[in-house]
Amino acid sequence: MLRDDTVAAIATAPGAGAIAIIRLSGNNAFEITEKIIKTKSGKKLSDQKPNTIHFSEVIENETIIDEVLVSIFHAPHSYTGENSVEISCHGSLFIQQKILEIIIKNGARLADPGEYTMRAFMNGKLDLSQAEAVADLIASKSEAARRVAMNQLKGGFSDELQILRNELLNFVSLIELELDFSEEDVEFANRDELENLINIIRTKVKSLTNSFSYGNAIKNGIPVAIVGQPNVGKSTLLNTLLKEDKAIVSDIAGTTRDSIEDVITIEGVLFRFIDTAGLRHTTDTIENLGIERTIEKVKKAEIILYLIDASVERKPELYNKIKMHLSNKKLIIVLNKIDKAVLKLDSSDFNNAEILEISAKHKTNIKNLEKSLIDATNFANFDENDIIITNARHYVALQKTYEASEHVISALKRGLTSDFLSVDIRAMLNYLGEITGEVSNNEILGNIFANFCIGK
Amino acid sequence: MLRDDTVAAIATAPGAGAIAIIRLSGNNAFEITEKIIKTKSGKKLSDQKPNTIHFSEVIENETIIDEVLVSIFHAPHSYTGENSVEISCHGSLFIQQKILEIIIKNGARLADPGEYTMRAFMNGKLDLSQAEAVADLIASKSEAARRVAMNQLKGGFSDELQILRNELLNFVSLIELELDFSEEDVEFANRDELENLINIIRTKVKSLTNSFSYGNAIKNGIPVAIVGQPNVGKSTLLNTLLKEDKAIVSDIAGTTRDSIEDVITIEGVLFRFIDTAGLRHTTDTIENLGIERTIEKVKKAEIILYLIDASVERKPELYNKIKMHLSNKKLIIVLNKIDKAVLKLDSSDFNNAEILEISAKHKTNIKNLEKSLIDATNFANFDENDIIITNARHYVALQKTYEASEHVISALKRGLTSDFLSVDIRAMLNYLGEITGEVSNNEILGNIFANFCIGK
Repeated sequence: MLRDDTVAAIATAPGAGAIAIIRLSGNNAFEITEKIIKTKSGKKLSDQKPNTIHFSEVIENETIIDEVLVSIFHAPHSYTGENSVEISCHGSLFIQQKILEIIIKNGARLADPGEYTMRAFMNGKLDLSQAEAVADLIASKSEAARRVAMNQLKGGFSDELQILRNELLNFVSLIELELDFSEEDVEFANRDELENLINIIRTKVKSLTNSFSYGNAIKNGIPVAIVGQPNVGKSTLLNTLLKEDKAIVSDIAGTTRDSIEDVITIEGVLFRFIDTAGLRHTTDTIENLGIERTIEKVKKAEIILYLIDASVERKPELYNKIKMHLSNKKLIIVLNKIDKAVLKLDSSDFNNAEILEISAKHKTNIKNLEKSLIDATNFANFDENDIIITNARHYVALQKTYEASEHVISALKRGLTSDFLSVDIRAMLNYLGEITGEVSNNEILGNIFANFCIGK
Repeated sequence: MLRDDTVAAIATAPGAGAIAIIRLSGNNAFEITEKIIKTKSGKKLSDQKPNTIHFSEVIENETIIDEVLVSIFHAPHSYTGENSVEISCHGSLFIQQKILEIIIKNGARLADPGEYTMRAFMNGKLDLSQAEAVADLIASKSEAARRVAMNQLKGGFSDELQILRNELLNFVSLIELELDFSEEDVEFANRDELENLINIIRTKVKSLTNSFSYGNAIKNGIPVAIVGQPNVGKSTLLNTLLKEDKAIVSDIAGTTRDSIEDVITIEGVLFRFIDTAGLRHTTDTIENLGIERTIEKVKKAEIILYLIDASVERKPELYNKIKMHLSNKKLIIVLNKIDKAVLKLDSSDFNNAEILEISAKHKTNIKNLEKSLIDATNFANFDENDIIITNARHYVALQKTYEASEHVISALKRGLTSDFLSVDIRAMLNYLGEITGEVSNNEILGNIFANFCIGK
């Protein structure tokens, strides 16, 4: 998979902007750049100091295509660890494409998705979990997602696994040494110490796998369902929550929101409203949803906002129909239209779930509802510096590590011989190594980097 | 209008990408940057050499927000002529906004649209027509538009006007000197030489205003109408032309096309198909358009592709209904479905317009049709290095210059006194000066820069 050709791609967001960046990386990055640009100073790029910027013209057939800034980075002190060049051009889509085309004509290859980061991994600039953190950082849509990705990029996660894996590697070496002396019945590896280490690893791995449901929620948003009888104000509530959030975002203008609109961020945590197609563009119309679809919605959510109309005397029958689907869910009972309240509810009717009185229309008590959403996440259990798993691949590898560790423990308890122990410990080492990329294959790498965008 | 505060904005295209750039410019650009970032080397940014790049962390409340590259530019050697910083961060929309927010919290102001370029103009880095060329470059969607904008940015246009304006300024000084000696009836300014200069300017100005219709076409695309009876294959032809062009563009992948889909680029020239809403998403359906709407379409176009079905014996009656609207238009008669031809046409029936035989469905002769479109532009009259006006503001100023020049010529012919001459020459100087920005006011500047994007 290690390639020695030079690749190029547009690294900034697709579309027109003031500035766009085209990035080259590889052995011939300077050579190719020098074929197509002329520095204003007349100096040769490859003679210049690393990490310097040069005002230049991109030239094709003696025609000036654009005035650009060229930044040069010398191997190994670049993102990829290779010689790299960044050309900062006028951000017309046409000019970006034109310059990329000229670069490719002059010997570069269009980079594959994630190829820059893959090269960084291949050149030892990042381990695999750090490379994945780069993709997570770029995809991060909330403060929590950014923070978890940043922690992972800083290596906290892989460092910890690395230390445990090295200790285990030490034991397996001793155990395999025993095999050479198998006729003498020696034990170089202290079995109690080994069992102790395996238990430490199991505790760590368990805590990491436990963090995954939170990590996944952080990365993809916590699914929230708004349910209730027709006309209780579900769409009004959705719009109120979305608007509150948008008001904050538009403060810093100059950027557009993502296309996924039905998400809000509260204290840096992303909440994702599911199945809102029928709710979003209407206010105060009758939103009806069959009981089956409501149950589907409840099943997909982690938090249920169960809306009840306080202005009419009506038993909330819906609750009885959905309550068997509420285990492991967080239920928030929202009593809406509180300004016209005639209905009184008792928490004991809802398995002691929290009851919150609001008016979606008049925006009464919305801040408290937002606080309830945050409380419902149990994120308080996690500290800012805790290591949290957000990646399904890591989760699977950790689960397999845990399973293999059970075999090791069982083998130890049954006093099995070194060769059996060695196989199970090697399996643990293998799964742990997959996370950091010390153990990898082209298929794993291909899957990981194919999900990156081109240009990263 | 000259401001001494520090501004910041996201300079790359809106949306998520691998990399995004946030740009600061102004007196406190370094100071503000140093408040929010820490270089990995631990060195102070403001002590570093200009045009260098520094691997850093953006930090808020002791939390690492992102790992970034920081590029520094020292006044006056920056785009704006001020101290400037570019922060290249991970291109998540959330991270871009977050960093911009932190910068603004630390004392920068969100830049107005075009403010960087306005500051460059104010600081004498660009004249006004060059500043406008920057916006044109960023908006350029074809090779021709890019080339014209680039020529304008390189100053060819303003230089030429500047030379003529300076010569005229010389004359007006002499003429105004005559006013001081008005009782002595002297003529410091040679009237023949003045008339000669005015005529040179008039020729130049005329040629520039004449170029505007081409310039405008280059910038905005040449409007083309596809007209014809129902079922002659208009939508098929449109789709064939669009697909041919897209095939080329998709070769260089990694970027998305603009949202305006009904444009094609042939040999770097942009053609814009007008009123294709009914045509675009269908193939081979009956597209009917009332005669009035067809005439409206013809009026808006510069090139008419008049499609006739060769597979049926039918007189092209439509021609008689639209022919009175074809003066100043270029008509291309396209005989479609030539693989099933039964109809023979004679060029003399169409005022000797070119007749082109194609099959839109089987893509026969499409390259020739594209060549006819290029020929129809008369762009052959313009050389690559010709200066072409693309800006309506310049066009108006040049027209006014020309009008004022007629007054000067008339005054010279009638032997009017220096004071009359002076007024008309001053008017010419004023209009010429408006183009380069030597004569400007806040309103003109406000209008120009308000049309820029934020970040430029």
